[in-house]
Amino acid sequence: MKSIEWQQGALVLLDQTKLPKEIEYLHCTDWREVAEAIKMLRVRGAPAIGVAAAYGLILAALEVDVREASEAEKFDLFHGFATELKETRPTAINLAWAIDRVEKEVLSWKEKHAFSEIIPFLVSLATEIEAEDKELNDNIAFHGAEELKKENKKLRILTHCNAGALATAGVGTALGVIRKLFEYDALEQVYADETRPLLQGARLTAFELLEDGIPVTLMTDNMAAYAMQQGLIDAVIVGADRITTEGDVANKIGTYGVAVLAKAHHIPFYVAAPYSTFDFTLKEGKDIPIEMRDPNEVRTLYGVQTAPLEVSVLNPAFDVTPHAYITGIITEKGVLKAPFTESIKHLQELVED
Amino acid sequence: MKSIEWQQGALVLLDQTKLPKEIEYLHCTDWREVAEAIKMLRVRGAPAIGVAAAYGLILAALEVDVREASEAEKFDLFHGFATELKETRPTAINLAWAIDRVEKEVLSWKEKHAFSEIIPFLVSLATEIEAEDKELNDNIAFHGAEELKKENKKLRILTHCNAGALATAGVGTALGVIRKLFEYDALEQVYADETRPLLQGARLTAFELLEDGIPVTLMTDNMAAYAMQQGLIDAVIVGADRITTEGDVANKIGTYGVAVLAKAHHIPFYVAAPYSTFDFTLKEGKDIPIEMRDPNEVRTLYGVQTAPLEVSVLNPAFDVTPHAYITGIITEKGVLKAPFTESIKHLQELVED
Repeated sequence: MKSIEWQQGALVLLDQTKLPKEIEYLHCTDWREVAEAIKMLRVRGAPAIGVAAAYGLILAALEVDVREASEAEKFDLFHGFATELKETRPTAINLAWAIDRVEKEVLSWKEKHAFSEIIPFLVSLATEIEAEDKELNDNIAFHGAEELKKENKKLRILTHCNAGALATAGVGTALGVIRKLFEYDALEQVYADETRPLLQGARLTAFELLEDGIPVTLMTDNMAAYAMQQGLIDAVIVGADRITTEGDVANKIGTYGVAVLAKAHHIPFYVAAPYSTFDFTLKEGKDIPIEMRDPNEVRTLYGVQTAPLEVSVLNPAFDVTPHAYITGIITEKGVLKAPFTESIKHLQELVED
Repeated sequence: MKSIEWQQGALVLLDQTKLPKEIEYLHCTDWREVAEAIKMLRVRGAPAIGVAAAYGLILAALEVDVREASEAEKFDLFHGFATELKETRPTAINLAWAIDRVEKEVLSWKEKHAFSEIIPFLVSLATEIEAEDKELNDNIAFHGAEELKKENKKLRILTHCNAGALATAGVGTALGVIRKLFEYDALEQVYADETRPLLQGARLTAFELLEDGIPVTLMTDNMAAYAMQQGLIDAVIVGADRITTEGDVANKIGTYGVAVLAKAHHIPFYVAAPYSTFDFTLKEGKDIPIEMRDPNEVRTLYGVQTAPLEVSVLNPAFDVTPHAYITGIITEKGVLKAPFTESIKHLQELVED
């Protein structure tokens, strides 16, 4: 099942809000539909929204192309749409990363081309970003599994939210590592936190792993501490939405709590994420903007009321795990260890050179 | 709104599974309906199920009374029903405590009375247990508020599950303390964990506090760590289902995780519970039986599917918080502090003398 597919003039997205009960695809022919799908979490997961946004820019260009306007106005309009698309979700850096990358490429490309020629160029860029994501997922999976199989036993791994095939263009980041461990016969059981309020663990991670025949046990978020206390968890692996130069990690709300619990139980805590997740402009996690979402996500569930509708609600979509809680950050170039300021700097030099 | 009321031959229970959307009362005229209501959490909260069970025994006696049987057979049958009622939920000790107390009283009473005279005696015992619970709630509230107001600022308090009026015959244990702090103008805000899977925090705690005009903010369980990290929480107060002689506390699943997080953030963690919650036959928390509940409580919510129906599920109803995580245990006789083995022994001497 592909979660993102470009089909000549339309971006087809698997509607992840309908899973696991319904398998429904959205056919977006307007970039605003892509923006809406990102905002409503129909497509979600930091790498996946980067890829979706890259394809969304083709739809933006198609709209600009038929407008009556000068060349300069067309490029300006395109830039305006790109900026709007970039602002749909504030925390995950991959969205901004993908759009900035495309815009940067367009900037040098347009010196020698007319706007009317842009579509095939944007298609090739989006396809490239998608193919790269697929490949780097494989590399993350490899490096993570090599690191974890050192434990020399069949592992019981806890994961939070969904950092899987549904969140990326490939096998997933955290779930990519888990898939590779399963392939190595080094996996005993995955424990999936359901991940309230939007239940990405229950709806998506459990669904993905069952589809692949990987043993998975679902639990509510507040059972993670119990599972650790009972000795059921050997390691934790999660994805990331943004990582600072000091190694502080923004990820789905609840991740920080799991990290504190893992440390208290002496359980290694890994983050799996590609290079595009690093924000080299930010040093400390406290500077990452945290998206606050609609209170009704907490007061209701699938339209069913779960609390008094007039109650105040706290609903941050993400939290920040300080680097002191992190055993390793698994990237496509290898596993980064503390001191993270140095290992992240080294990664940057390796990639930018 | 009373959650438990005896009305001449019927035990009227507020159906807590229907809150906050519907206010519906169950009229139980058969003790098996009371057992079913306890099992299905229509009445819940350790002190409340103790009180409900005491009234349930009157219904059991009414059934026995009209049977064709000898006096000895009637007392045996009554004991059999009482034993069945006691086994409906294994973790909360108050259920067993209330039934054992009634049975012990009946044992000496029956030396001078016939079974046909038992009903008024059982009514007076149940009424006494209910009145005592109401009174000791007031005392817990007083001792807890005196302890906490020492902080000399308006407090922001996190609570988990529902240890309120709905869980007791009075103002509640944890929520009793919160109500008293509000009365003292020493409360700024309550943060209520929603408490998956059955959402007692969202459905009951939020509901109760809103009814009383006490400021409450709801969040999902996995947001507690974020709230603590952001400096939003001054203290945690929870109830208890069973406490061992070393001070280990069984309470609603998720409590242990909150305790670990509180310690990591240097936030005081209090347990509020009456004397009847202590199990003097158990030393360590690991010996407390933990009720495992239906996997579908995690896979569905109000009948709405939230996960693949074939996924394995971990669903413990309770967890155990070791005494090392507890700042104080607030009882009707005062606040117990470490070393708990001694302070609990002292409490026992005080009460049993």
